[in-house]
Amino acid sequence: MEHPAARAGGILAELRRRSPLVHAITNCVSAPFTANALLALGAAPVMAHAPEEVEEMVDHADALVVNLGTPTAAALEAMRLALRRANARGIPVVLDPVGAGATGFRTRAALSLIAAGPPRAIRGNPSEILALAGGRGGRGVDARNGVEEASPVARALAAGGVEAVAVTGAVDLVTDGRREIRVANGHPLLARVTGTGCAATALVAAFLAVEADALSAAAAALACLGIAGEQAAEGASGPGTFAARLLDALQALSPGQLAAAARLTCSAAPGGTP
Amino acid sequence: MEHPAARAGGILAELRRRSPLVHAITNCVSAPFTANALLALGAAPVMAHAPEEVEEMVDHADALVVNLGTPTAAALEAMRLALRRANARGIPVVLDPVGAGATGFRTRAALSLIAAGPPRAIRGNPSEILALAGGRGGRGVDARNGVEEASPVARALAAGGVEAVAVTGAVDLVTDGRREIRVANGHPLLARVTGTGCAATALVAAFLAVEADALSAAAAALACLGIAGEQAAEGASGPGTFAARLLDALQALSPGQLAAAARLTCSAAPGGTP
Amino acid sequence: MEHPAARAGGILAELRRRSPLVHAITNCVSAPFTANALLALGAAPVMAHAPEEVEEMVDHADALVVNLGTPTAAALEAMRLALRRANARGIPVVLDPVGAGATGFRTRAALSLIAAGPPRAIRGNPSEILALAGGRGGRGVDARNGVEEASPVARALAAGGVEAVAVTGAVDLVTDGRREIRVANGHPLLARVTGTGCAATALVAAFLAVEADALSAAAAALACLGIAGEQAAEGASGPGTFAARLLDALQALSPGQLAAAARLTCSAAPGGTP
Repeated sequence: MEHPAARAGGILAELRRRSPLVHAITNCVSAPFTANALLALGAAPVMAHAPEEVEEMVDHADALVVNLGTPTAAALEAMRLALRRANARGIPVVLDPVGAGATGFRTRAALSLIAAGPPRAIRGNPSEILALAGGRGGRGVDARNGVEEASPVARALAAGGVEAVAVTGAVDLVTDGRREIRVANGHPLLARVTGTGCAATALVAAFLAVEADALSAAAAALACLGIAGEQAAEGASGPGTFAARLLDALQALSPGQLAAAARLTCSAAPGGTP
Repeated sequence: MEHPAARAGGILAELRRRSPLVHAITNCVSAPFTANALLALGAAPVMAHAPEEVEEMVDHADALVVNLGTPTAAALEAMRLALRRANARGIPVVLDPVGAGATGFRTRAALSLIAAGPPRAIRGNPSEILALAGGRGGRGVDARNGVEEASPVARALAAGGVEAVAVTGAVDLVTDGRREIRVANGHPLLARVTGTGCAATALVAAFLAVEADALSAAAAALACLGIAGEQAAEGASGPGTFAARLLDALQALSPGQLAAAARLTCSAAPGGTP
Repeated sequence: MEHPAARAGGILAELRRRSPLVHAITNCVSAPFTANALLALGAAPVMAHAPEEVEEMVDHADALVVNLGTPTAAALEAMRLALRRANARGIPVVLDPVGAGATGFRTRAALSLIAAGPPRAIRGNPSEILALAGGRGGRGVDARNGVEEASPVARALAAGGVEAVAVTGAVDLVTDGRREIRVANGHPLLARVTGTGCAATALVAAFLAVEADALSAAAAALACLGIAGEQAAEGASGPGTFAARLLDALQALSPGQLAAAARLTCSAAPGGTP
């Protein structure tokens, strides 16, 4: 098997060549930053959340994001319609269960989207992933649990049909139930800018649009954002200039630099066959 | 006729003097950037989209923007109410048919707003403008057609009562059906920041608020944004720092600099009388 | 009584220690900047506005913001539910009556939230505060009145049970009906960036979460933002770079610097006992 860092570089090159259209049904807090991150990466964003049009928009898209950042009944209906259509078309769907565990409304919404799908991938912080197995989750969108704590739930979700589950934190974990990749890129300032988690989910969707192996795609996306964060932090004087520099770094990151700077560690899942 | 570049400078000076209030019914992705662009330019933004209040808000405004970026049934109802009131009051309305052609919902919404109006101006990318004549439009908000390809539709819309139709791309085209101005300012990084198209539409509204000749006002607004983009690109290391510098440049741009840097070419519309 | 500048420094130190969770039901224009300002300050933001979940989200929160920037009937219902629950739990609520006076819908919404509460604090510009006593308010979100003009209304609101009323402008006024603090920090560029008013309200909520004396907490929050604005303006070339530097400055501001740079003046309210 090709080393995942080299592979990540190859996927990024393909993404830049194809510029996939990512349809995001997301929240009003992170929508601008998410769109800008996709544009900086080399993908194309489109946002549409009216139940009247989401299925038709999905027909244009190369990937779909469903994000529970500020859910409403209407947006959830749109997400269900879009998810079903995306699965019927065979394009990847990534779920971001923002705040799952914080309210029953969000937890139920996440579980119902998984049941209706499943999505090809899920990305969340440890508390959110734990909540998908009945955990209490964090306070709001805040993570109080460590990444490895959530790994059994991530593996269980993968066993249930989600092709890649990403738990992000100091060191990210991505699992497909058999194989695991840990991503040791990133910078603490990423947690001081709103929407970086939502952007990570959208980047995962963009990578999945051009790469069939969901595990490799998700790991590549997270490495990409993490490295951009490391580069942006050099010379940033705080979270405001960091956010601007993060977009600059995402655009400037070459496939070769990604392959060289990605800190990816592969292993077999406990009980899995690598 | 005064040269349009000199005229653009004069309109900007008037805009700075009057600081028009622009009421925008817009989308959640570009709302923050649009508001910041209006503030940087020297106008005042207000956003309000509840059907219960939009008419009363229009009564305070000097111009109205209706933008289809993330349409919902409720927002469309608010746009219809606001458009009717704005036309009754005689203040300019600018329509941004974001994603027209991508979904029937958006195309119908754009056409119904034009039928209810018409708005004084429309600004869109080539695919969106083509969609207003039954074209398929682009994929999502992405433009796949060239500006000149959309020019016959732009002229037809102008013949139908829209005083200025702006098709933006590498070189922008503005037509009132008789006269045309091409705007050759801009920079590729403008396409890598979300909301710059929506901001362009809002700037057109701000210029229309202080200038009765819609063609000149729209061309001045597009030149303004394009020049700010050229200036912002110098020294920017990517789309993040570019976006911040773009707002700086919008604020710093003087009427004299606008007149000197605007690359505007006038011509008669085919079949029109200049 | 400890000097309010020294006290402000102490409250900021406590805020950094506890990192309060601020639940904001706010508008789509300023939501991203508000979240980023809270994160930069050292607090944690969560946005949720579905009536189905706001009460449960309030149960996690240390403070609540209700902001009328882009009100809808559903959001207002969510605000009422959240306010009631926050008051029942005893966590502070801060109301931002954005655009009160501009439309009857907003004025009535603000008054009905005050009647249902009252909130522990209110922050608005002079026109908005005047509108709460039946004034006409400004045009949209624009302030046409001076801070001192609104002071009688601010005092009347305090007499009605709001523990701190903040009227912001060139020099901010905070009153609890008996005592008043004027905050002379700030910079004109703050008015050229959308969402700085909404962010100010959210910072007031974060400070109230860790300090029982509402007057001191509100004054500390406004001084904090004002000083960050002064520091951000040094070296900024316009509103875009200023906004990024403002977040940097909020994060970098130490309790000692706040105490040293805060320009706070205390006095007794006319007729009050200091």
